[in-house]
Amino acid sequence: MAQTFTERDPFSPITYSYLMEEVLYQGRSQHQDILVFKSPFFGRVLVLDGVVQLTEWDEYYYHEMLAHVPLHAHPHPRRVLIIGGGDGGALREVLKHPGVEEVTLVEVDAQVVEVSRRFFPTLATGFADPRTRLIIAEGSAFLAGAPALFDVILVDSTDPVGLAANLFTQSFYQRAAQALTPEGMLTSQTESLHFHRDFVRQVQGRLAQVFPIVGLYAVPLATYAGNWWTFSIASRRHPVSQAIRAPQGVTRYYSAEVHRHAFLPPSLREELMKG
Amino acid sequence: MAQTFTERDPFSPITYSYLMEEVLYQGRSQHQDILVFKSPFFGRVLVLDGVVQLTEWDEYYYHEMLAHVPLHAHPHPRRVLIIGGGDGGALREVLKHPGVEEVTLVEVDAQVVEVSRRFFPTLATGFADPRTRLIIAEGSAFLAGAPALFDVILVDSTDPVGLAANLFTQSFYQRAAQALTPEGMLTSQTESLHFHRDFVRQVQGRLAQVFPIVGLYAVPLATYAGNWWTFSIASRRHPVSQAIRAPQGVTRYYSAEVHRHAFLPPSLREELMKG
Repeated sequence: MAQTFTERDPFSPITYSYLMEEVLYQGRSQHQDILVFKSPFFGRVLVLDGVVQLTEWDEYYYHEMLAHVPLHAHPHPRRVLIIGGGDGGALREVLKHPGVEEVTLVEVDAQVVEVSRRFFPTLATGFADPRTRLIIAEGSAFLAGAPALFDVILVDSTDPVGLAANLFTQSFYQRAAQALTPEGMLTSQTESLHFHRDFVRQVQGRLAQVFPIVGLYAVPLATYAGNWWTFSIASRRHPVSQAIRAPQGVTRYYSAEVHRHAFLPPSLREELMKG
Repeated sequence: MAQTFTERDPFSPITYSYLMEEVLYQGRSQHQDILVFKSPFFGRVLVLDGVVQLTEWDEYYYHEMLAHVPLHAHPHPRRVLIIGGGDGGALREVLKHPGVEEVTLVEVDAQVVEVSRRFFPTLATGFADPRTRLIIAEGSAFLAGAPALFDVILVDSTDPVGLAANLFTQSFYQRAAQALTPEGMLTSQTESLHFHRDFVRQVQGRLAQVFPIVGLYAVPLATYAGNWWTFSIASRRHPVSQAIRAPQGVTRYYSAEVHRHAFLPPSLREELMKG
């Protein structure tokens, strides 16, 4: 008899429930509750502090769009930094680019990486790649001492509460800009245009204080409450809304056409971002 | 103390729950259960047979995109037929077009219209408009005897079960084509690209058997499970993916730019619609 898993998401006015066939893992790390369950529809589901982080069924939309938009807009991404992303999904996408020489993944919670290696082998493939450097540390603290050598920074965080709140501040973006090369770009997940529009607006404003080029793109995600999920992208020199490189690696959702299309039309973005 | 309203949606692998401040109406018509409740976040919510049909907070995305895409792609829409839509939301949008001379709204359930008039005055405004002709009948049966005089047909139905299943069949589309002028267009809501992709594919195929031009556009909706909500549009002569008329009436989401952008990029549509 299937049980039900119900999210406890303080950021959503709708509560999502999933059928839960089997609990595969349940634990508490130094930082958070971790749950892995099997859903009859979504396959395996990763839950942190009561909020669904990914399902095997649709994780590729999020991870492809987080990684491939900056990596196809940048002329030659060689060194990539991922902050968060301990499940390995973004890492897997970055490593599809043969030109990438090194990926540094800075995850605060070692146990997320362990759980992903054990229960999400299709996501965690990249941890075995010789180009991967895994560092267990808090992302903002890591950046404070980082040299300016990254071509692309991806912020793959949980919702902006607790430790993750550090990853959306203006001082974080200043540190990130200093850790980028002069041609560098940063992309961050920035929540839902339906339910967290004020937050999206705030982040766009903070990025614009630090970077000359700031874009907003969106992807419809079934399993994040509010869907219409946004990514904010900031760039020190190059435009961001078009792929300037040929497709790198096989993707299921991302394409040059999807890249272009994911950016909100200018008049809509302006309307939505009005204070 | 707020209660919880939980949907019973057989088409969704995620179950949505809402905080319910107050039940404003609860009844059973000849066809279905009808519930109206007040949500602290979404305002008033209309529920039919356990599934949320609309909330005051975000109904305009759906109703604007259903109505204004065909009405701006058609060169001179004068006579419009709405099948379903007893809440009046689509009707309200159609009537924003001053060139529209007559709107026939064919709703199977008189009680939905009554409930909307009473509890959703901002949606039901159009029922008092002299251009509106309200007919209580089943949409497919109505079309069987309809003369070929409609410029635009909107299908604003519930999920494709029970009576509403009739509104997605090939014979329904044949009847609809016969009720359109040679320049006519039809738009129908066609469920979610995430959760009902096979269904979207089937409907697109059926429309292509009847109409020379078939398009697919989408809008991210927070309150329909699976979001990434689709509209299928079919046209006897004119292209559909661009607004060819100046903006008609004030809209909150729809614009000529949003119109264009809502259509899926060709390669994505092809990929998603693969059998």
